[in-house]
Amino acid sequence: MNCIQYRLRSIFLNTYFCSYSIYLMKTKPTLFTSLSPALLHLYDLSNSIVVIIDVLRATSTIATALFNGAKSVIPVDSVSRCIEIGKQIHGITAGERDGRVAEGLIHGNSPFEYPRSFIEGKTLVLTTTNGTRLLQIALDKGAKEIITGSFPNLSAVCDHLAAMNQNVILGCAAWKDRVNMEDMLFAGAVIANIRNHFSINCDSSHLAETIYKKAKKDLFGFMKKNDASHYHRLMGFDLEKDIRYCLTPDEANVLPIYDNGKLIVK
Amino acid sequence: MNCIQYRLRSIFLNTYFCSYSIYLMKTKPTLFTSLSPALLHLYDLSNSIVVIIDVLRATSTIATALFNGAKSVIPVDSVSRCIEIGKQIHGITAGERDGRVAEGLIHGNSPFEYPRSFIEGKTLVLTTTNGTRLLQIALDKGAKEIITGSFPNLSAVCDHLAAMNQNVILGCAAWKDRVNMEDMLFAGAVIANIRNHFSINCDSSHLAETIYKKAKKDLFGFMKKNDASHYHRLMGFDLEKDIRYCLTPDEANVLPIYDNGKLIVK
Repeated sequence: MNCIQYRLRSIFLNTYFCSYSIYLMKTKPTLFTSLSPALLHLYDLSNSIVVIIDVLRATSTIATALFNGAKSVIPVDSVSRCIEIGKQIHGITAGERDGRVAEGLIHGNSPFEYPRSFIEGKTLVLTTTNGTRLLQIALDKGAKEIITGSFPNLSAVCDHLAAMNQNVILGCAAWKDRVNMEDMLFAGAVIANIRNHFSINCDSSHLAETIYKKAKKDLFGFMKKNDASHYHRLMGFDLEKDIRYCLTPDEANVLPIYDNGKLIVK
Repeated sequence: MNCIQYRLRSIFLNTYFCSYSIYLMKTKPTLFTSLSPALLHLYDLSNSIVVIIDVLRATSTIATALFNGAKSVIPVDSVSRCIEIGKQIHGITAGERDGRVAEGLIHGNSPFEYPRSFIEGKTLVLTTTNGTRLLQIALDKGAKEIITGSFPNLSAVCDHLAAMNQNVILGCAAWKDRVNMEDMLFAGAVIANIRNHFSINCDSSHLAETIYKKAKKDLFGFMKKNDASHYHRLMGFDLEKDIRYCLTPDEANVLPIYDNGKLIVK
């Protein structure tokens, strides 16, 4: 092979590999992280799978109830609606306000209230402030698919997102629209696991992954050391056990998918 | 001293120091970080100093122009308004859209366009998309005082906030409401410097500080490694020099304060 042939071959190979890289980049779906419900409108939900993230404790409890055999979980936005639907379908009504079981409901938000011996075969009607609101926004904006994510079902979420090859929006429920630590940590955990499947042009996602990688050896210790607001709030209600469980991966590894008003495992 | 006297003294001392700690905690002003203009409404601005943060590049350029002797900087929200005010006061009109000097304006957003030899004694009329919008929200919500912050004037901002003993809101300008890395890094730098002066119950602030501490040895390298969207955007316009300058502390260490439509150094 002479010099000109060699150069032509190099140019051809370079062009081929560059084009292939661009092709791969273009065909990868996108991933964005919305750190608060007040930011969710910035993203195109109609073309995406939306992951509802409310680590302490709504989505951890949803995964746990379904893992333990609940028929479905119906998320509702108010105590009165929770009571109404609970009566209609003979469901288990649950929800808290200010750390206590809300008046008129029977159960609270702790995942430990829903062991298999209690919840199997039943429907949980759950009202939470932040998670349910985020889910409603995702519905209103026409999300293509809605699933819920939490550390107890981290792998199920990651496996699903990696397999679906669709655009993804990680939606943090936050706290009254204020960004919170644990939801961002979970978003970071998802990204750390499946980043190669996506094209990610989103600072919130990169920040979440960085934070998660720094925290992952001891998520509970990280929350404590960095004065996470929910750490203090739940410790004030004597709920260390709940926090530790909700930060533990894959203890309730199912995939809750929203289907016609209910979260179910397909 | 007998046993009872000793115990009484212990109880007295404990009570005294506990009360004193609570008193100190209560008297410390609060600090919050708003990661996007879309989150600013969550905080009580009327009772706070608001720091407008638009690191790449509005607030870095504002600090630089004032450090180099500009009489004042007038932030405006549109190109047409910039042209109008520029004519009225014979000011230097500046602003970019999509990385180029906007049509009808004379200068761009780079801090390097404003050396002392050019800007001394003149008024800069600057239009930027994100920073100016955030400033307008802060004005509309009746912020007690508005200052601008960037790495080039980091110490001036920190010294002022520590001395004022007032509530503080660090307001990130972000990018079209999407959270960005560099503004969060600057918020974290401020917090790392003055956290002891404030009572901080805000996950965004703790996250910003954590990120900054991880990044501070090499802010440019951190932005590059973590795929910051503005790193890519400005590198695409061949502006590495601007990025490096805008991430360097105290190169233009003045305190721009908003006063009756203008940013000035008092």
